[in-house]
Amino acid sequence: MTCYELVYFDFYFRAEPIRQCLAYGGIKYKDTRVTLSDWPALKKSPKIPYGTLPVLYISGKPLCESHTITRYVAEVTGLDGEGDLLEVARLDQIYELCREFQEATQPYFFALNGLNKEDPAKLKSEVFLPAVDKYFPKILSELQPNYIFGKGKISYVDLYWANIIEFYKRTARDVIEKYPQFMEHERLIKAVPKLQQYFATRPKCPF
Amino acid sequence: MTCYELVYFDFYFRAEPIRQCLAYGGIKYKDTRVTLSDWPALKKSPKIPYGTLPVLYISGKPLCESHTITRYVAEVTGLDGEGDLLEVARLDQIYELCREFQEATQPYFFALNGLNKEDPAKLKSEVFLPAVDKYFPKILSELQPNYIFGKGKISYVDLYWANIIEFYKRTARDVIEKYPQFMEHERLIKAVPKLQQYFATRPKCPF
Repeated sequence: MTCYELVYFDFYFRAEPIRQCLAYGGIKYKDTRVTLSDWPALKKSPKIPYGTLPVLYISGKPLCESHTITRYVAEVTGLDGEGDLLEVARLDQIYELCREFQEATQPYFFALNGLNKEDPAKLKSEVFLPAVDKYFPKILSELQPNYIFGKGKISYVDLYWANIIEFYKRTARDVIEKYPQFMEHERLIKAVPKLQQYFATRPKCPF
Repeated sequence: MTCYELVYFDFYFRAEPIRQCLAYGGIKYKDTRVTLSDWPALKKSPKIPYGTLPVLYISGKPLCESHTITRYVAEVTGLDGEGDLLEVARLDQIYELCREFQEATQPYFFALNGLNKEDPAKLKSEVFLPAVDKYFPKILSELQPNYIFGKGKISYVDLYWANIIEFYKRTARDVIEKYPQFMEHERLIKAVPKLQQYFATRPKCPF
């Protein structure tokens, strides 16, 4: 039997879509959380081939890169289009779009979390709002009539996007509220039966 | 029968791994090249859902995002690990690493091609060289003993990376020459029998 260990910091951020896919699929894994003080030494060890987290150990063999791990666990748990090549590709393109939004707004995200020393208010107007204007209409156009991205059932893209909206709903609610479809999307994901136990018991993280 | 049309500019850049996968797989497609003067009007048309190129039309239906399209044609042409989940994931993680290098060096790439007004020499030392130092050892560690990334046969990651090396070999040869394994990798890809006709007849582009 394949055994899994996910190594990341005690944050949601890049690991959360991975953890939620695994929870959705009922796949047990060792949830290892590295402290920031342990990280500098660990970063240089051969256990972390690319010097970055998360790493997913699959029966002891490391798989790196958060987006790669997300796609891998999405396939393993049937959250990626389940072999329908065109649906796999459609979800992949929406994921790329959401990822572009996340990367474009990362300086604001970092400022909100004290990970850089820039002024959040300045970044909100200069970085976050232009990205919202650019990406939200495109992402919105990919929602199905039932307010999820996956056709017929939820996908890893829904988990990925709901996590982004969850954070910005807390930190820039005035903006997110103007997109009730995304508020509804996030509410739907939070209500997925297969994720209820996970949401009820996950360690609380600031981001 | 599925019919394909690839729409991009008359550049290699983001379309080239896609074109090479299709050529490798012997898949015929309409190779539409948009002029820069036609682009502003086309960008706003519903034919281009995300307002970006490339777009691959699959029997008339648009698929957006270059990396998505690359993964899709890689699967269709058997260049992605062919259903071996762990090999698919291994290639995906190397692709992410190569992509990070490409994105980190994009300002230098743009300066070399006149797409921004910055000083290439300055960007070479401040952007390109630090990215080479950071990523090349990691990417190198993923080469198999036969100097390709794919296990046993070439993959879309080989095509993607050889295209990056091809460009920087021309524009920063002093740096690339210090990595003879990548010079050899690119030479091997250029010698792939299934790509000979493509390389002999592709329109010559500056980048």
